[in-house]
Amino acid sequence: MEYRISDQLKDMKPSAIREIFKSLTDPRIIAFAAGNPAAESFPAAAFSSLATEILKNNAVAALQYGVSEGYEPLRRQVKERLCQHFGCPDSDTFLIVSGGQQGIELTCKVMCSPGDVVICENPSFIGALNAFRSNGAKPVGVPLENDGMDIDALEAAARNNPRAKLIYVIPTFQNPAGITTSLAKRKAIYEIACRYDLVILEDNPYGELRFAGEEIPTIKSLDREGRVVYCGSFSKVLSAGMRVGFLSTPAPLASKIVVAKQVEDVHSNQLSQMLCSAFIERYDLDAHIEKIRALYRQKSALMLKTLDEYMPACVSYTRPQGGLFLWCTLSERIDMNDFVQRALTRFVAVVPGTAFNCDEKAPSQAFRVTYATPTEEQIVVGVKTLASLVQEMSD
Amino acid sequence: MEYRISDQLKDMKPSAIREIFKSLTDPRIIAFAAGNPAAESFPAAAFSSLATEILKNNAVAALQYGVSEGYEPLRRQVKERLCQHFGCPDSDTFLIVSGGQQGIELTCKVMCSPGDVVICENPSFIGALNAFRSNGAKPVGVPLENDGMDIDALEAAARNNPRAKLIYVIPTFQNPAGITTSLAKRKAIYEIACRYDLVILEDNPYGELRFAGEEIPTIKSLDREGRVVYCGSFSKVLSAGMRVGFLSTPAPLASKIVVAKQVEDVHSNQLSQMLCSAFIERYDLDAHIEKIRALYRQKSALMLKTLDEYMPACVSYTRPQGGLFLWCTLSERIDMNDFVQRALTRFVAVVPGTAFNCDEKAPSQAFRVTYATPTEEQIVVGVKTLASLVQEMSD
Repeated sequence: MEYRISDQLKDMKPSAIREIFKSLTDPRIIAFAAGNPAAESFPAAAFSSLATEILKNNAVAALQYGVSEGYEPLRRQVKERLCQHFGCPDSDTFLIVSGGQQGIELTCKVMCSPGDVVICENPSFIGALNAFRSNGAKPVGVPLENDGMDIDALEAAARNNPRAKLIYVIPTFQNPAGITTSLAKRKAIYEIACRYDLVILEDNPYGELRFAGEEIPTIKSLDREGRVVYCGSFSKVLSAGMRVGFLSTPAPLASKIVVAKQVEDVHSNQLSQMLCSAFIERYDLDAHIEKIRALYRQKSALMLKTLDEYMPACVSYTRPQGGLFLWCTLSERIDMNDFVQRALTRFVAVVPGTAFNCDEKAPSQAFRVTYATPTEEQIVVGVKTLASLVQEMSD
Repeated sequence: MEYRISDQLKDMKPSAIREIFKSLTDPRIIAFAAGNPAAESFPAAAFSSLATEILKNNAVAALQYGVSEGYEPLRRQVKERLCQHFGCPDSDTFLIVSGGQQGIELTCKVMCSPGDVVICENPSFIGALNAFRSNGAKPVGVPLENDGMDIDALEAAARNNPRAKLIYVIPTFQNPAGITTSLAKRKAIYEIACRYDLVILEDNPYGELRFAGEEIPTIKSLDREGRVVYCGSFSKVLSAGMRVGFLSTPAPLASKIVVAKQVEDVHSNQLSQMLCSAFIERYDLDAHIEKIRALYRQKSALMLKTLDEYMPACVSYTRPQGGLFLWCTLSERIDMNDFVQRALTRFVAVVPGTAFNCDEKAPSQAFRVTYATPTEEQIVVGVKTLASLVQEMSD
């Protein structure tokens, strides 16, 4: 039978990353592709003893329905952390969502009718771009420079798209490009949002993972008008599989986001919320994060050192100060898609840059690489494999 | 500042049930309102020892990202159970979703563009109705009789709504009405779906909870054309707070549902999926369900006996053969909303029937009551309280 698929979904394809993810079950593959945090970053032993305890002493709360807004003690802890360290205002509403992904998707659903526009960095996070598309909203890309979006191009996008509702931005350790938006550009983005009456969705999943350079204030901390929704997650610091993220949002938007969340999954997993809350209460989250930073500092340095040593000069790459990703750009002589395919036959998985384009048909010379998931040995072997391939394809 | 909310969300309100749920933290309230399973129905001790084990021996799988389709071993177990007991075809794709709620919402999102129509039983599950509305789809209600939808009215709804895409039906122990659709009507509903090229979304969250009468084949088991999406959940048999549900769906729809799920929450909670899987593997799920059935058999009998004894004859109520709910209808002399408000001041929470209407402005004389959550003592006290209130309001 022929299925009459909805307008929003009929042309959508699975995320390239999620599809690559399935191939990662082959143990020979070096996983430079996924955005998976390092397995060592999960506090498994602590979670094991906390889970035992919660299911012994507080089983009904963990196994029964919870409230859509989130587990109250965790909401308070998130609020405290976001107000202290990320410039979120006390007057905001703090909600627990099923991973940062849901925070992005719900914000779009509440703001955008089909045909509305979301202005994004180009390239940007594929999960967010697809979330916008699935709601019938159109991502419009603004070129990314080394210190954030091209501000003139952003202003032009705001001016030329009367149906723009949102600016979506990952200002710190951007996915996929690894760059960080400067304070001056954060201010400029905020001013443009005010001028064109846009809401900013500030996505900050990597904000805790700085291993070099100075902290830069969030866009949220610059907000005077209640114009910024801030989205964060425990995926990169406690567990990705638990799907616990959070939003700090002006109250009038929060009430709509809660309605939209109720119809998606009623509430986020109770046990996971209680595990995060108990971890924050009983362990030292900052010390735990410091260990993850040290790990990524070391792994990224190793990847950069190996790239510096072996990669032909026709490939340029970013030098991130935190987060999970490097963004590599091939010279025009090499066909990027061909390169990515051939890398996979040599058991190195990277993500083609086209996956992150706002315009799905636009070309790209870049690919994304992570140092978080692979072991140190895999980092060296993988980079050398990519370097030889570049060499061969340049000849 | 004024927020420009999307067309789909701007008029939506939080679910009446979720709002009532918040008031249930008051320990004086007798909870006849929520759809919460009995706390005794959760295998807490088993989950406690399984969680310890999983987080000791298999922590990375539990804490790392998983695949959007669901945890493979659980998908296989769900497939086996649905094929053996619920008439799902081996050729379907079996997906894990974040509770039955997400299964409903994703099916609608994949099928319905804004302005499309979902034909529903009237009254119907508020979470589903709101899911349809949040996607811009319009629920069109078909009156419910004692053995399921009025078939003539269903055919008229299909004929008069050229934008109808889906028939949403809870054929077994319907929420809120507690009635079960006869086999004859299941066949008739299926034939109408074929004639008008509609997909049926068969929602069966209570199908395992029969405590009287004979099993009736699912609509899915009648499907010759790949026209039925079957949605189920572990919420009522293992844990509601874990948010683990599942879909059995024709493959062409499955691929779109997976894309839609990726953008909502990437994948469902890994630890919960692994807990369900380990429980099914290591414990006797059927024996566990038998205990829940015995519990609800006893609680429903007590509620009916107390109603028979104390409730004035001007109130009629259903006599369910399974599931969680009774549906009570007041005589026209009593204002239903006033009754529900006054019951709450006497610490008995029930859900006003208007919450379940497809047309949000339509009146109702009914209210929904559950016997699952309250204790036996609360059932007696709560029913007596409602009965005296009816008596007073009839005088």
